[in-house]
Amino acid sequence: MVGNAQSESRKCVVVIGAGFAGIEVARGLGGSRADVTLIDRQNYHLFQPLLYQVATAALSPANIAEPVRRLVRHYPNVSVMLGEVTKISAMEKRITLADGMSVPYDILVIAGGATHAYFGHDAWAKFAPGLKTIDDARDIRSRLLLSFERADMSDDPAAKKRLMTFVVIGGGPSGVELVGSIAELARHTLAKDFRHIDPASATVMLLEAAPNLLSTFPPGLARYTELKLKALGVTVRKNCAVENITADFVEAGGEKIPTALAIWAAGVKASPLGKILGAAVDKSGRIKANRDLSVSGYENVYALGDVAQVKGEDGKPLPGLAQVAKQQGQYLGRALARKIATGASASDFKFRDRGNVAVIGRHAAVADFSWAKLKGTPAWMLWAVVHIYLLAGLQHRLLVSVQWLWRYVSYDRGARLIVRSTDGGGDGRC
Amino acid sequence: MVGNAQSESRKCVVVIGAGFAGIEVARGLGGSRADVTLIDRQNYHLFQPLLYQVATAALSPANIAEPVRRLVRHYPNVSVMLGEVTKISAMEKRITLADGMSVPYDILVIAGGATHAYFGHDAWAKFAPGLKTIDDARDIRSRLLLSFERADMSDDPAAKKRLMTFVVIGGGPSGVELVGSIAELARHTLAKDFRHIDPASATVMLLEAAPNLLSTFPPGLARYTELKLKALGVTVRKNCAVENITADFVEAGGEKIPTALAIWAAGVKASPLGKILGAAVDKSGRIKANRDLSVSGYENVYALGDVAQVKGEDGKPLPGLAQVAKQQGQYLGRALARKIATGASASDFKFRDRGNVAVIGRHAAVADFSWAKLKGTPAWMLWAVVHIYLLAGLQHRLLVSVQWLWRYVSYDRGARLIVRSTDGGGDGRC
Repeated sequence: MVGNAQSESRKCVVVIGAGFAGIEVARGLGGSRADVTLIDRQNYHLFQPLLYQVATAALSPANIAEPVRRLVRHYPNVSVMLGEVTKISAMEKRITLADGMSVPYDILVIAGGATHAYFGHDAWAKFAPGLKTIDDARDIRSRLLLSFERADMSDDPAAKKRLMTFVVIGGGPSGVELVGSIAELARHTLAKDFRHIDPASATVMLLEAAPNLLSTFPPGLARYTELKLKALGVTVRKNCAVENITADFVEAGGEKIPTALAIWAAGVKASPLGKILGAAVDKSGRIKANRDLSVSGYENVYALGDVAQVKGEDGKPLPGLAQVAKQQGQYLGRALARKIATGASASDFKFRDRGNVAVIGRHAAVADFSWAKLKGTPAWMLWAVVHIYLLAGLQHRLLVSVQWLWRYVSYDRGARLIVRSTDGGGDGRC
Repeated sequence: MVGNAQSESRKCVVVIGAGFAGIEVARGLGGSRADVTLIDRQNYHLFQPLLYQVATAALSPANIAEPVRRLVRHYPNVSVMLGEVTKISAMEKRITLADGMSVPYDILVIAGGATHAYFGHDAWAKFAPGLKTIDDARDIRSRLLLSFERADMSDDPAAKKRLMTFVVIGGGPSGVELVGSIAELARHTLAKDFRHIDPASATVMLLEAAPNLLSTFPPGLARYTELKLKALGVTVRKNCAVENITADFVEAGGEKIPTALAIWAAGVKASPLGKILGAAVDKSGRIKANRDLSVSGYENVYALGDVAQVKGEDGKPLPGLAQVAKQQGQYLGRALARKIATGASASDFKFRDRGNVAVIGRHAAVADFSWAKLKGTPAWMLWAVVHIYLLAGLQHRLLVSVQWLWRYVSYDRGARLIVRSTDGGGDGRC
């Protein structure tokens, strides 16, 4: 059924993962002499750079998720399949899904992305969720809002204080954006909504094990970021490694910080597809791929995006960024289409650094380009324009723009829903 | 902590339920000599008339849900509490929440709404979910979209047929709106997105036990509705009572209809608050309230909205409509404010019928007013304008308008997310 070659020269290409990398590969092969099957665990492509805004009640999940089918609907040679790959048999050239279905391939593209890594402390995952999926974001949003609700109902000052302490672990771009957004939620959005607590008095804390925030940015921008976060009321602790996390506190730098919600933004590891394939992986579980994204020792197997470790021209591994994944996807889509048509092999992938941006709060962001370093309002405007532009689809752009403008004017956020995923359903309101 | 009277003449009012009725009571008491505590199981007020659009991927949950706190933030004398009422002690004048917290009252307002009723067949609930909450809507949306995904992956024609058969049970306004929206989703939105199935060939069926659809509308409008549904490709079966529902089929009118998704829109029962109070209830569990919404035998206890059976001027029970709940809430808020201030008791509640509207599809709706019966485009435009107007908050109005305009132009729907609430989280994409 899937990818039955119509003529002998057609190839079955299976692409695992519909993130930035996988989508671009499938699109690049659209209209080519390949029968493409794009497989993902979810039916949507997620715009992860704005996921923290879902976690902080500013956007709805659907605003940053586009159906995979919609993104490839114009390519009759691209099929979409919902499923989780549990087995890759390179000998038989077929993959197997969790439901037992098996799909043959001529060419396999692995773009399974990454998830959080707790550096050997997997028990922390329960208390300090990471932020990689829509489910994660919904869960964090609910816990965040529920903490204020519980603090409002509590008569115990210590419990109130604990419930209104939020700890973000990891001072990279994700941690900075998340902690800034939580601070604005508490200081502005919720400020007038409670009678028995003052949400603006919440403790919002950022812990970073290294001596500086934003280690990949120039030191000047990192210092600016720290000052801006402090101005937003964020407590920033550097050189502060986390020693333990429980349901009640985070222990870091020798101190126990009572908190009801810690969020993990400190590290990632690759999806288990490298292990499933059996290929050589680095310590983060990333498949060691060649500079043309092929995987040594496997015929017609490619790996790219966050699941792959690919070296740049300087011999250092490329960073795990959306722009790397996207560029690799565009490169590989084109390269495979050409290879299938003419048999020609491609020259190595070259990453073009488009620069990095991180947003802190309103009128506060940092942008690091090869041609300029920006901060403050110019960086913030640039961040907003670039992210609207990068969103897939005009409808998403419109909806996110409306919500951002609304929030700018009113400080209000439109998606303040507490969802208790455990009780699923029930009989309406109380 | 809650509602401690500051002066002897202040009264503690506890309002259970933040639906159309409860919100209006709380607002009506805003600024009065009452300390109001508004309690709901959810932190948001839900605009139920558009819930079917969330269930059919047209809107996001947050578009029709407004934080309760936001709706009453301008009234310092109104507190909001998140919780489920499990006990009402009329003797002690206090209610107890599921978490054990107890709240005293001088005046108790019960506005707990309704949920689905399966007429003694509670086992059907699992296979034919109803549509009353955001969780219900998300669940139905996921099952609906997942059915198409599974049909696309299946090699078995019988399984494909079953997976692409959707049965809505109940031909009232909710059932009509839902089935029309499902038909449009299959025929238009998804039409080009699959490679191995034709979504437009899905069987979309409406079952009604009575001889006619929309029994509360004039027969002419009901006949128009049926014709329009058939034009949309909906199979309408009247005089067709459901006999059994399993995971694999719906049995109705002596026939087994294989289906992967049946949706229950056939009946409601009141929230269990009547039972919890111990008051006299009707066969749907509704508290029998007097025409001033007081409950006989209980001092200072009131019931209104879908949880109450209140008789109109003609002696017949008022229908379970949003407009009844809202008007009752406005009436009771005013009446209680006056009673607390002056001791004056109010004259009976009078329902003003604002008319009924049900939408079938684009350019197709029916509207029944005392002054006119409308159908087609005029009714459809009126429906849209009225529902935008009734939505709480300018941001929701803007976002829903944008999505409706987008959908009108493109047939596309913006919230096509499959959420598997059972696996909660996980490790990114496959």
